[in-house]
Amino acid sequence: MEHLISMQDLEQSELLNLMNLAKNIENKDVLIDLRGKLVALLFFEPSTRTRFSFEAAMKKLGGETFSMTGDQHYSTKKGETIKDTLKTISMYADLIVVRSAVEGMARYAAEIVDIPVINAGDGANQHPTQALLDLYSIQKTQQKLKNLKIAMVGDLKFGRTVHSLAQAMASFSPQLFFSSPSHLAMPKHIKNDLEKAGVHYQEQKDFDRNISQLDILYMTRIQKERFADPEDYERVKNTFILKRSMLQDVKPNFKIMHPLPRVNEIEKEVDNTPYAYYFQQAQNGMFIRQAVIAVLLKAVSL
Amino acid sequence: MEHLISMQDLEQSELLNLMNLAKNIENKDVLIDLRGKLVALLFFEPSTRTRFSFEAAMKKLGGETFSMTGDQHYSTKKGETIKDTLKTISMYADLIVVRSAVEGMARYAAEIVDIPVINAGDGANQHPTQALLDLYSIQKTQQKLKNLKIAMVGDLKFGRTVHSLAQAMASFSPQLFFSSPSHLAMPKHIKNDLEKAGVHYQEQKDFDRNISQLDILYMTRIQKERFADPEDYERVKNTFILKRSMLQDVKPNFKIMHPLPRVNEIEKEVDNTPYAYYFQQAQNGMFIRQAVIAVLLKAVSL
Amino acid sequence: MEHLISMQDLEQSELLNLMNLAKNIENKDVLIDLRGKLVALLFFEPSTRTRFSFEAAMKKLGGETFSMTGDQHYSTKKGETIKDTLKTISMYADLIVVRSAVEGMARYAAEIVDIPVINAGDGANQHPTQALLDLYSIQKTQQKLKNLKIAMVGDLKFGRTVHSLAQAMASFSPQLFFSSPSHLAMPKHIKNDLEKAGVHYQEQKDFDRNISQLDILYMTRIQKERFADPEDYERVKNTFILKRSMLQDVKPNFKIMHPLPRVNEIEKEVDNTPYAYYFQQAQNGMFIRQAVIAVLLKAVSL
Repeated sequence: MEHLISMQDLEQSELLNLMNLAKNIENKDVLIDLRGKLVALLFFEPSTRTRFSFEAAMKKLGGETFSMTGDQHYSTKKGETIKDTLKTISMYADLIVVRSAVEGMARYAAEIVDIPVINAGDGANQHPTQALLDLYSIQKTQQKLKNLKIAMVGDLKFGRTVHSLAQAMASFSPQLFFSSPSHLAMPKHIKNDLEKAGVHYQEQKDFDRNISQLDILYMTRIQKERFADPEDYERVKNTFILKRSMLQDVKPNFKIMHPLPRVNEIEKEVDNTPYAYYFQQAQNGMFIRQAVIAVLLKAVSL
Repeated sequence: MEHLISMQDLEQSELLNLMNLAKNIENKDVLIDLRGKLVALLFFEPSTRTRFSFEAAMKKLGGETFSMTGDQHYSTKKGETIKDTLKTISMYADLIVVRSAVEGMARYAAEIVDIPVINAGDGANQHPTQALLDLYSIQKTQQKLKNLKIAMVGDLKFGRTVHSLAQAMASFSPQLFFSSPSHLAMPKHIKNDLEKAGVHYQEQKDFDRNISQLDILYMTRIQKERFADPEDYERVKNTFILKRSMLQDVKPNFKIMHPLPRVNEIEKEVDNTPYAYYFQQAQNGMFIRQAVIAVLLKAVSL
Repeated sequence: MEHLISMQDLEQSELLNLMNLAKNIENKDVLIDLRGKLVALLFFEPSTRTRFSFEAAMKKLGGETFSMTGDQHYSTKKGETIKDTLKTISMYADLIVVRSAVEGMARYAAEIVDIPVINAGDGANQHPTQALLDLYSIQKTQQKLKNLKIAMVGDLKFGRTVHSLAQAMASFSPQLFFSSPSHLAMPKHIKNDLEKAGVHYQEQKDFDRNISQLDILYMTRIQKERFADPEDYERVKNTFILKRSMLQDVKPNFKIMHPLPRVNEIEKEVDNTPYAYYFQQAQNGMFIRQAVIAVLLKAVSL
């Protein structure tokens, strides 16, 4: 494991080992000291939340970060190429985290520099640490990854996280349920992948129909910008909302996940139930990122 | 002591213990190592100086900070609530410092998150670490807090620091002298508080009239924006200026304080006198903040 | 050595000792721990690259930084003087790095504050750590500083780095060759300095004429803004370009340097040759800055 660019790069054993390391870090069963190590956070596209998660991950292990956000991106201003920018940054840092609206940017960076690269989102393509933290959250709450019933709700077309999660779960024999506005349905190519892997999935209009059988309910935000006609948005936006009243017959191990930020798709009254897991899910992201960084910096071996 | 939101939350013994701890930190009589600890600096309202003071305080104790300033405040942009933002940040950090133009914001934050919160200014309301550093500065220069003669000069209406200081000194039997433009006088409710506490105070036009009897002269900036009519400002702005020539007969222990930044309210020639204390006062803020952070993170007990 | 403001402040023995310390830091032959130390980076003029280099230098030695960039410069907004800003910052930090478009700013800062100051560029005047890293790069690649043949190409009029380098090399008996558009030639006062020091220099139109004899080829960027008439720029911009085909007969120790960022003045095909040294040159800047910071903070003695 030299870089983390795509979930497809990870073998299943590596994936399980990473989650195990994250657990040990969370439980303080392993001590990792990254003093004197420097992670460059190149966020060509802004994302305060993801950046903070990486910053916290590194700093709480004793290491350091340097941030370069989009508008400080001097290379374009002075006519420098992205290649030169990446190469120069790599002369100072020990690891680069790249976020960009451009698909393939992280892969490109990994080819240019001689230090490890983590993809923190390249357009609609990959955001592997998000997929890992979702898996870690499922494993932590269900004590297993196999044979789970998982519903995914909201914007399933543009939602990078639900694509990655569906693909990542494919090898663990899940039953998947998809609910979305019709023009924001799970894309054909993801469904093809699932079919090839022999995964049972089902599209359903009312996401709470079978809620009492679910292990995981994965909610996502429906973004206004995804609608050509604002009236379409107004009509749809109140349809895919999780209400506390829906939770009466859920299983004890049932958990609600959300990649955050949320707007109104989960009623505030849900927050106080034992099923709400989205904030812990965010925190799990820090542990997973600590595990990934520690492995890539060879501070620990998988 | 779980949070530091308001000076009113502090018992007098806690206050004195905090100052004692600050002194021990300043003199390197106590070693505090905050490695692996992370403070989130949420500055919804910008304040480079206060932010730097907290950053320096934390970093010089071996800890780390993460800054989120107003314009990076993604929650509003994407429709997230402040509550969700605070909750999420609290999943990564060990302590939150909040500054906001909204009164009560820090108290609100403390109710939402499960980690300690420090109020770094909530509108015209409270800025307790500023009050603490003022007390610490007085104690350090006068070797006592009791029975001091203190003059407060400038904008006494909107000046949050002079309100807090007057209230905080109330239990130490001071004699207070107030000098300000008439429409920027010390507010009635503060004067009521002082009267109830039996504090002697006096409003006087010429602040230097009794300067030779004073222990502390607390100057503040008169902001142009406080005047409806710019001509009023022009007329008043040169009235409340401390000149070197006024310092001929002051007491040896006399000190001049100012919360900074200053504009023209203290003549530059005053800086080289042994009475100028405003820059050390700023530095004292770092020691007090180190003490507060260390206590809230339970790295030391009061 | 209390500050580093200008190359002229350094005696030759100090300069050689600094380079030696940088080498020991690079080779990990000396351990420097700057934990608890804080460097304030005051960049009144932005420069992500230089700032990152100083940040990396400090953080990789276990220390910390605080950044204040131009637009956060609150002093002007609230009417505070630069002097007060500098004085206040110096109350929190252990060392200040200043970059400004104003000539003499770093010297001014050094006079005001009681902590060490490093000049990270003051207008067209000095940028001593850049000069030091150039010398360090030459020494590292040539194993000597004496009797070298060095060509400087591009904008020799406004290029602060080539001025400093020419002056710094003057005491090491170099042979210098200058190539530039006619209105961007090496300034008269630099040439006078070289003549006084008895340095052989020569201006030549085709910079590659004697490339096979050179030890160092120092390329610089020609900035469009330097031309009154855009057509002049278009005519000239493709003249001073280093092509791979020019490198056929160069000496084995030949190295190409560039202060970066570059635009098109070095063909990409040159990057893969053993002569390309500009990225390592950038990295050398980190080691030199670590040496300077460590000495000024008295973490090590020269």
